[in-house]
Amino acid sequence: MKKLDENRFDTRYINKFASLMTVGNGYFGLRASHEENYVDQTRGMYVAGIYNKATANEPSDLVNLPDMVGMNIELDGENFSLLTGEILSYKRQLNLENGELRRDILWKSRTGSRFRLTFQRFAAKNDLHVLATKLTVTSLDKPAQMKIVTGINAQQTNFGRQHLIEEKVRVVEGDLLQGIYKTTESGHMIALAACCTCSLQGEVGHAAKNRQLLTTIKQDLLAETPFVLEKMGVIYTSLDGDLRGESPEEASEAALRSCSAAGYDALLHKSAGEWAQFWMEKRIKVSSARVFDQLALDFSVYQLEVMTPAHDERFSVGAKGLTGEGYKGHVFWDTEIFITPFHLFTEPKKAKKLLRYRYLHLKQAMGKAASNGYEGALFPWESAFTGEEETPEFAAINIKTGKRQKVASALAEHHIVADIAYTVVEYYQNTLDDAFMKKEGLELLKETSRFWISRAAEENGQLVIKDVIGPDEYTEHVNNNAFTNYMAWYNVEQALFFMGKFGDVDHQLKDRGHEFLKRLYLPKANDDKIIPQDDTFLSKPEIDLSRYKQAQGSQGILMDYSRQEVNEMQILKQADVVMLLYLLPDLFPKDIISENLHYYEEHTIHDSSLSKAIHAIVAARAGDIDKAYGFFQESCLIDLGPNPLSSDEGLHAASLGAIWMAAMFGFANISIKDQRLSLDPKLPSEWSELTFPFIFQGSRLHISLTHKQVEITKVSGDDVCIELNGAEFLVSNKLEVELQYI
Amino acid sequence: MKKLDENRFDTRYINKFASLMTVGNGYFGLRASHEENYVDQTRGMYVAGIYNKATANEPSDLVNLPDMVGMNIELDGENFSLLTGEILSYKRQLNLENGELRRDILWKSRTGSRFRLTFQRFAAKNDLHVLATKLTVTSLDKPAQMKIVTGINAQQTNFGRQHLIEEKVRVVEGDLLQGIYKTTESGHMIALAACCTCSLQGEVGHAAKNRQLLTTIKQDLLAETPFVLEKMGVIYTSLDGDLRGESPEEASEAALRSCSAAGYDALLHKSAGEWAQFWMEKRIKVSSARVFDQLALDFSVYQLEVMTPAHDERFSVGAKGLTGEGYKGHVFWDTEIFITPFHLFTEPKKAKKLLRYRYLHLKQAMGKAASNGYEGALFPWESAFTGEEETPEFAAINIKTGKRQKVASALAEHHIVADIAYTVVEYYQNTLDDAFMKKEGLELLKETSRFWISRAAEENGQLVIKDVIGPDEYTEHVNNNAFTNYMAWYNVEQALFFMGKFGDVDHQLKDRGHEFLKRLYLPKANDDKIIPQDDTFLSKPEIDLSRYKQAQGSQGILMDYSRQEVNEMQILKQADVVMLLYLLPDLFPKDIISENLHYYEEHTIHDSSLSKAIHAIVAARAGDIDKAYGFFQESCLIDLGPNPLSSDEGLHAASLGAIWMAAMFGFANISIKDQRLSLDPKLPSEWSELTFPFIFQGSRLHISLTHKQVEITKVSGDDVCIELNGAEFLVSNKLEVELQYI
Repeated sequence: MKKLDENRFDTRYINKFASLMTVGNGYFGLRASHEENYVDQTRGMYVAGIYNKATANEPSDLVNLPDMVGMNIELDGENFSLLTGEILSYKRQLNLENGELRRDILWKSRTGSRFRLTFQRFAAKNDLHVLATKLTVTSLDKPAQMKIVTGINAQQTNFGRQHLIEEKVRVVEGDLLQGIYKTTESGHMIALAACCTCSLQGEVGHAAKNRQLLTTIKQDLLAETPFVLEKMGVIYTSLDGDLRGESPEEASEAALRSCSAAGYDALLHKSAGEWAQFWMEKRIKVSSARVFDQLALDFSVYQLEVMTPAHDERFSVGAKGLTGEGYKGHVFWDTEIFITPFHLFTEPKKAKKLLRYRYLHLKQAMGKAASNGYEGALFPWESAFTGEEETPEFAAINIKTGKRQKVASALAEHHIVADIAYTVVEYYQNTLDDAFMKKEGLELLKETSRFWISRAAEENGQLVIKDVIGPDEYTEHVNNNAFTNYMAWYNVEQALFFMGKFGDVDHQLKDRGHEFLKRLYLPKANDDKIIPQDDTFLSKPEIDLSRYKQAQGSQGILMDYSRQEVNEMQILKQADVVMLLYLLPDLFPKDIISENLHYYEEHTIHDSSLSKAIHAIVAARAGDIDKAYGFFQESCLIDLGPNPLSSDEGLHAASLGAIWMAAMFGFANISIKDQRLSLDPKLPSEWSELTFPFIFQGSRLHISLTHKQVEITKVSGDDVCIELNGAEFLVSNKLEVELQYI
Repeated sequence: MKKLDENRFDTRYINKFASLMTVGNGYFGLRASHEENYVDQTRGMYVAGIYNKATANEPSDLVNLPDMVGMNIELDGENFSLLTGEILSYKRQLNLENGELRRDILWKSRTGSRFRLTFQRFAAKNDLHVLATKLTVTSLDKPAQMKIVTGINAQQTNFGRQHLIEEKVRVVEGDLLQGIYKTTESGHMIALAACCTCSLQGEVGHAAKNRQLLTTIKQDLLAETPFVLEKMGVIYTSLDGDLRGESPEEASEAALRSCSAAGYDALLHKSAGEWAQFWMEKRIKVSSARVFDQLALDFSVYQLEVMTPAHDERFSVGAKGLTGEGYKGHVFWDTEIFITPFHLFTEPKKAKKLLRYRYLHLKQAMGKAASNGYEGALFPWESAFTGEEETPEFAAINIKTGKRQKVASALAEHHIVADIAYTVVEYYQNTLDDAFMKKEGLELLKETSRFWISRAAEENGQLVIKDVIGPDEYTEHVNNNAFTNYMAWYNVEQALFFMGKFGDVDHQLKDRGHEFLKRLYLPKANDDKIIPQDDTFLSKPEIDLSRYKQAQGSQGILMDYSRQEVNEMQILKQADVVMLLYLLPDLFPKDIISENLHYYEEHTIHDSSLSKAIHAIVAARAGDIDKAYGFFQESCLIDLGPNPLSSDEGLHAASLGAIWMAAMFGFANISIKDQRLSLDPKLPSEWSELTFPFIFQGSRLHISLTHKQVEITKVSGDDVCIELNGAEFLVSNKLEVELQYI
C-alpha cells in the first residue's frame, strides 16, 4: 500500500500538505497542520454538518472548530520550531493503509542539542468521535528540560469569522480538559474533551484564558530515554445521532475516559482493522509503468472515504470534503456526479444516504422553485445543513469598482436538478432498490421533472430552456445549453419510466411529461458533427488558448479578459458537451463523440478541476487511450502535483472522485445499460493490470483486467450477467476470458 | 530625551515590547508588532470609543481593528524572518521625543545574502487619523529580487472574537486600498485606507480574499541601492467628530491622498513639531544617579499622552490605554484617580473632558443606581462607550468546578462613585472653573451624594455602609470599609460645600446630607493608632507574606489559597487605608499616617499595579524618603522591568499615571489645600534636581527643585500664591528660595 510522503519541511507547501494529509473518518476531518505553530499555517478541524453564519448576511461556513493538536514544545528553554536550529532529518507520512499520520524529526536546537521527535495522530475509523495523538521525544545528547503547553484552543476562526460562543471550559478530575461551545446562529452544541497521559510523572498544571484551555507539562528528560505523551481528544455535537440520551458534554467525558484507558496503540490497532477491511473491499490496484498512478488512486479512495459522512443522512459532502474552508464546505452537484459513483459501486448504502440528504431537503428545494416562479423542486446550487440556498447572493466585491455582482449560479445553474435525478436513476440501476425508488426516488424524479416542465418556455413551436448556466461557468446566461437540455430531457424521461414501472397514476404529470419530451429542443450535431453547446456558442469568436491551457486551473484568463469578454468568446472552463457525452453516451454515435471531444477540448482551458478526468473517460471510451491516459495523469496532479498553492483551502473532492471514475468508467470502461453490466476495457499501454472490487446489484465482484484477459470473480451474491466487449457472459463463480477470443 | 530601546530580538519579549512601543495619538493606538509575522505575536490596533459585543452575553471589547502594518517580505524567494538566516545587527527604538518607532536590521539570509532593512512608523500627532510607515531595504552583496505583500487584513480578532463585518473592500484608482467595516453589534462604521508608494517602479497587483485586501509589489533590487516603500494609512470611523458631513469612507480617501502626496518625512516633521511642544509643556526632568528614572518618567508621560482620547469627551481611557486588550479596554476608577491628575496639572481641559465623559453618562449611572435600589448615580465599575455597566456579570469560569461566580465588583465596588466626585473637586481646585462646577460639577456631586445617602444603612444609631469592596480586591463584601466611608463622607461634604457656594436650594438634599455627615460612621484609629480597613479586618489571622511579596503582581497567593480563604486573612492586594491617606491626607495626623503606612504595607502583597506608587507618595510625604524612592523604583518596573509577560495584554495605564504622581505629589510633594498651592519637596538623595512645568489655576509655572533650593518661574497667567514648607510666597515672575532659610 502506498504512503503519501513529505520528505522535506518547506513552509511554501505547509497548507498544501495540511490539506493532503488530512486525517478523518467522515464525521470529522483534521487538517495536517503541524503541532507547533508556523506563521501562515492554517489549522482546521471540521465536523460534517456543523455550519454557522458568522453574521446575518453571510452564507453558512463549515465551522473551523477549536484546535486540539496545537502544541508548544520548549526544550531547554528553546521553542521547538523547524525554522530554527537545524533539521537533521525530516519525514512525514500519511499511511493510507491505516489512516495514521506520522512525522519523524531529528532536530538540533540552536544550542546544539539533538532531539528526536515523533508525532503521530489518527481519526479513529471505528469510533468516529475519537482523535488520538501521540508524541515521543528523546533527548539524544544529554538530560534536558521540557515544557509542553497544549489543550483546546477556541481562538480558531474561519479567516476571522467567529462561529462559536465559549459556553463552558473546565478541567474534570484534575486532568480532563473539556470545552463546550455553541454556534452563534445555528445553535449547535459542540463538546470537545482532551486529556494528556505521560510516560513520566512531571509537573502538570491547567489554565483557561482568552478562549484557550491549556495543560502545561514540565518534564525533565533523561538522555536517550524516550518521553511519551499521549493526548486523546473526542468530539461530540448536539447533531450526533449516537448520543443515546446523553448531552454532548456527558458523552465526551465518558468517551474520553475510555480512550485514555485504552491508549494510542490499542486504539490505532482497532482503527487500522477497519481500514484493512475497507481497502480489501474498495481498493483499485494497478500495475503501472508509473508508480504514481497507484498512489493517486489510493489517495483518491482514501480521501473519498474520509470526506463522506456516511454515518448520517442529514449531511453530505462539501466541495473540499472536510479538508479546508474553500467553498465554505458547501455541497454542490459535485456530490452526485463525482463523489456518489465511488460509493455506489463499492458500498451502495452510502450512495443512498447521499441521495437521502437531497430527499430530506425536497421541501426547501420546492420552496426555492416556488419563490423563483417554478413548479417542482429546484435544488440549491450550494447547500449546507438546512437545505436552503447557500450560494452567496453577491460575489466577492469587485475591488476595482467597489460593487458586488449577483452570483449567477444560484439563479441559473439549474442543471443540478437533473444531476440529482440522474444519480437517483444510477442508484436504482445498480441496486434495484425498489423500496427507495418507489418512495424517495420517484418523488425526487417527479418533483425534478415538474421543475423542468415549468422551466421550459415555448418558442417557435418548440420548448426551449433559456437563460441557464451549464457546468461551464465561463459561459453564463445562455439559451438551450446542450448539457442542460439533454439532462432535463433524461430527467423527465426517467421519471415517466419509473412512474410507469411503479404504477404511479399522476396523469397530469404524465401528459405534461410526454409533451415535454416530444417538444423539448435538443441541440443536434451540425454539419461538422459538432453539437452546439448553446444557441450562440459556435458563432462566437475564437482565440488561441494555448497560453492559458499551460496554466490551467489558475483562471489566468480572467486576468486578461473580463468575465463578460470571456463569455463572448469560445472559451470553456470545462466542456459541457464532453460532460454530456460522459453521462449520456448512448444518445450519440461514435463519430459524433470523437468529433465533439476534439472540438471542445481545443476550446477548453480546463480551469475547472472537474474537467480533465471527464475528458479522460470520454477519450478512453472513444478509443483514444493515449490521450485519455494523458488526461488522467494530469487530473492526478490537481492536488498531488507540484503547485504549492493548489490545495491551500482544501482538496478538490470532485476531482478525487473523478480520478476513481476515470479508472473505472474510462480504462476499465464499466457501464450499466438498461440495468445490465457492461465491460469494454481500454487499458493504457502503461498499465499491465488493473484489478478492483465492485458491487453490482447486490453481488460483490472482483475484476482483474490485463491487455489480454478479463478475470471476474463473484465473491458473493447472485449470478451476474455481463456484456464483455459486446459478448454476453454469466458470472456464477469465476470467469476468465481471453480478450482476443471475443 | 530618552529613547526606549530593544537591542536584541527575543520572541519571549515580543508581546511585551509590542505593548511598550505602542505608537498612538489618543485617537488610535497601534501595538508595536513587527511587520513580518511571528507565531504568538499579538497584533493590535484600537480606536478610542470603538467597542463592540461579539456575542450578546459578553461585555464589550475594545475592537481589534484590521491590521495595516503587517508585511510579507520575500528576498530572493526567502521569507524575511528574524528566526531564520542570521541577525547581524538589530536595534529597535521608540523615540519618545517625536513618537517614531524605528527598527534597524542587518540580516543575512539562509543563502548568505546580506540585507539592511529599516522599518519606521508613527501615529501623527497633528492629524489623528494618520498612520505613516516606511520601509527601506538595501541588498548589500548583489542584486536581489524582492516581493512584498501588504495591505489591510481584517482577519484580526480579539482572541477569536469577531467584531467586524467586512462591508466593502476596494482599490480606488488602481493604488488606494480601502476597507469599510461595521461593528456587528454597536454598528459603528470604520473606514481604513492605505496606499503604497515606492522609490522604484516595480510590478504591482492587488487582490482581495478571505477578509484581506492586499497589494503585491515585485521589485528587482540593485546592489547597495536602497529601495524605499512608504505606506500611508488612515482611519476614520462613524464616531469621528471631525467628519464635516463626509462619510468615513469619503474622508479616508481624501485624507490618504493628501498624506501620500506629502510623504513620510514631511509628515513626521509636522508630527514631531507637536511632540516638541508637548514635551516643552509637560516633561518632568530629573537629574538622578539612576538614569532609568528619567526614562521611566518620560515613558509614563509619553504613554499618558497617547492613551488619552483628548479629542472627544465621549471617550475615556481604558485600563490598558490603547496598548492591548486587557480588561477589554474598559474604563475604571483608574482614569479619575491615576490618569486625570497628569492632565489636570498640565492641560486641564483634558481633565475636564474626562470628567465630561462621566457627566455624559450620568443617566446610565442613575439607571444603575435605580435598578440596584439606590438613589442618585451609581457609576459602573467598568464602562465603555454606552456608559452602561460593562463588568462581566460572571467571572471567568472556574475550570475546576465548571461554575462561574458572579463578579462582585459591579455589585459592590462602589467607591468609584466617590472617586469621580473627588476628581470633580480636584478639577475645580486647580481650575476654579465656575462654569463647569455650577453645571456638570454640581450635578455630579449632588447625584453621587444622593447615592451615598441612600446607600448608607442605620445600625446602632449611626449610619454604616455595608457589603462593599474597597480598592483592595482581596477583601470582598465587608462592612464600613475605611476608604469607602471616608470618601463617601468627603463626597457629600464637598457637594454641600459647592451647593452652598453656588446657591443651590435643594433643601432636602442639604438636610439629608448634613444628617449623613453627622451620623456616618468613620472608622477611627485604634489604640495602636491603626485605622481598621473595615469592621473585621484587624481581627483576622495574619500569615507570613514575604514569599508572595517577592513575586508581587503575579497573584501567586491565589495558587495557594482560595479567594474565600484570602478574604478571611489580613492579606491585601493593595492597601485601602494607604490609598485613603494619599487622597485625604489632611484628615489624619502625621503619626497616624506613619503607623498605618507601616502596618498596612506589611500586610500588602502589592499584587495590584496601583499599589507601589501610592505607597511611595505616602511614604515621601511622611518623610521616609528612602522607602518612598524604593517604592517608586519598583513601580517603574511594573511595565519596564524584566518580566517578559508583565505587559502582554497592554500596559498598566494607572501605574504609569502613578509614576508621574509619585514624582509630583510624592517627591516634589505638591498639593492643593483649600484651593491654595503648597510645595514641600522630599527629593530622594539619588536625585540632585527635579524640574517640571505645571499649571495651577490658569497660571503656567516652571518649577525646579534641588535639595537646597526651589526655583519657581511663572511662564504665563496671574500671580500665584504658594506655600513652601509652610511659608507663603507670591510668584509674580521668578522666585528663588533657599530651603535652609525657610
